[in-house]
Amino acid sequence: MQKIAFIVSYDGTNYYGFQRQSELPTIQSELERALSEIAQEPIAVVGSGRTDAGVHAYGQVVHFQTRLKIPAEKWPLAIKNYLPEDIVVRAAYQVKSQFHARYDAVGKIYQYRIDRGLVPNVFQRRYAYHVPYPIDLNLIGQAIPYLEGTHDFTAFCASGSAVENHVRTIYRIGMREEEEQLLFTFHGNGFLYNMVRIMVGTLIAVGNGKIPAEEIPRILASKDRNLAGPTAPAHGLTLMKVEYPMSIFA
Amino acid sequence: MQKIAFIVSYDGTNYYGFQRQSELPTIQSELERALSEIAQEPIAVVGSGRTDAGVHAYGQVVHFQTRLKIPAEKWPLAIKNYLPEDIVVRAAYQVKSQFHARYDAVGKIYQYRIDRGLVPNVFQRRYAYHVPYPIDLNLIGQAIPYLEGTHDFTAFCASGSAVENHVRTIYRIGMREEEEQLLFTFHGNGFLYNMVRIMVGTLIAVGNGKIPAEEIPRILASKDRNLAGPTAPAHGLTLMKVEYPMSIFA
Repeated sequence: MQKIAFIVSYDGTNYYGFQRQSELPTIQSELERALSEIAQEPIAVVGSGRTDAGVHAYGQVVHFQTRLKIPAEKWPLAIKNYLPEDIVVRAAYQVKSQFHARYDAVGKIYQYRIDRGLVPNVFQRRYAYHVPYPIDLNLIGQAIPYLEGTHDFTAFCASGSAVENHVRTIYRIGMREEEEQLLFTFHGNGFLYNMVRIMVGTLIAVGNGKIPAEEIPRILASKDRNLAGPTAPAHGLTLMKVEYPMSIFA
Repeated sequence: MQKIAFIVSYDGTNYYGFQRQSELPTIQSELERALSEIAQEPIAVVGSGRTDAGVHAYGQVVHFQTRLKIPAEKWPLAIKNYLPEDIVVRAAYQVKSQFHARYDAVGKIYQYRIDRGLVPNVFQRRYAYHVPYPIDLNLIGQAIPYLEGTHDFTAFCASGSAVENHVRTIYRIGMREEEEQLLFTFHGNGFLYNMVRIMVGTLIAVGNGKIPAEEIPRILASKDRNLAGPTAPAHGLTLMKVEYPMSIFA
């Protein structure tokens, strides 16, 4: 048996998220269907984590085991015609037998795109959240450092999450403008359910003056989801990269 | 009556081109439907030119006349909810009564996107032509100057075009790399039917060694469509800008 890790890119628009759900189209079920067709036996894949319905990925990581002896570098083209055009395997690696896409992940980078144009950019309408009203980037810049670092992010976690430990470390939140877009990047050791989208909703609320930047520490301390801003829509969010130690390669 | 010019952006993926065709969805018919709903009377729009099925626009220009007294700058938001999400009016101007979107155009800029990745970029799959085999940009760079300038472009025009004069001037063909993409821009005083797509198909054929760069002058002189390269697919092409003299504004 070989253990293979894929770096997978997908347009999440037409999927009910990453995770398999009986009859609904999901990224996991499409990958498993394609692999099982190629291998002529059921293959299950394990992802680095779920992405919600409508969320995209540039660098999701999954692993699976197979008896097939396809060299790792041949996998992206071998699987291409078995997958729909909105799911693409960008790269494949042979990894050690104990590798686990979720447990071994040491960091993740998400990007959130905001389209600030008066009217939406048609070419970005599936990948950027249209926010045509004024937002003050200086105010957002003041709020960001309060979110960076190690905190209990309960106030920034959707209720219904089964995870018990809500302490996470955010190494860096980047903000940059690219023509009419505003791009946030979130680099952390892990993220709770909806955490990035709630942080973005909160930063936008700071930017339009609804939440003072200096309130962020109190919101964190409250552990009260109701004090943070709204959950920004799924379609602006992309999982860019999952980080692993170098020692994973077979 | 006011004459209004729109700068229109559209994702052409789901349309049978710009021009009205009885029952088929086209950009023109969507614009006319939206305007007629707002005005409560039929309104016809005139475009700067057709775009083919599947071709996109960032800056198509159309004009129309209306009794409505909506100030020009209010039009983009006024029409937004009457249009599908893949057609957006980016800007609107009041123009002189004699303005004509097609006859007054003095230049056009098209962009053609090529995705050179091993596998397609899912986020660009509707807007870039995937060319995973090697193309030599130096060879293409040698071919470009032969196409620039004033020529009879009959060899680069799809048969079936009704236009009699096939002489056009290309001011500049730009080529640049952007990550895994190769972007061509074509700036000219006008383009024949399929001309940009045939030039791109020919430049790719030069880049992979099928057509020698120095053959271009002979292909132009031949006026034989069969000597030029294939027509590159529609979805890589975007009409970026239509140029007019400054004197058009009312």
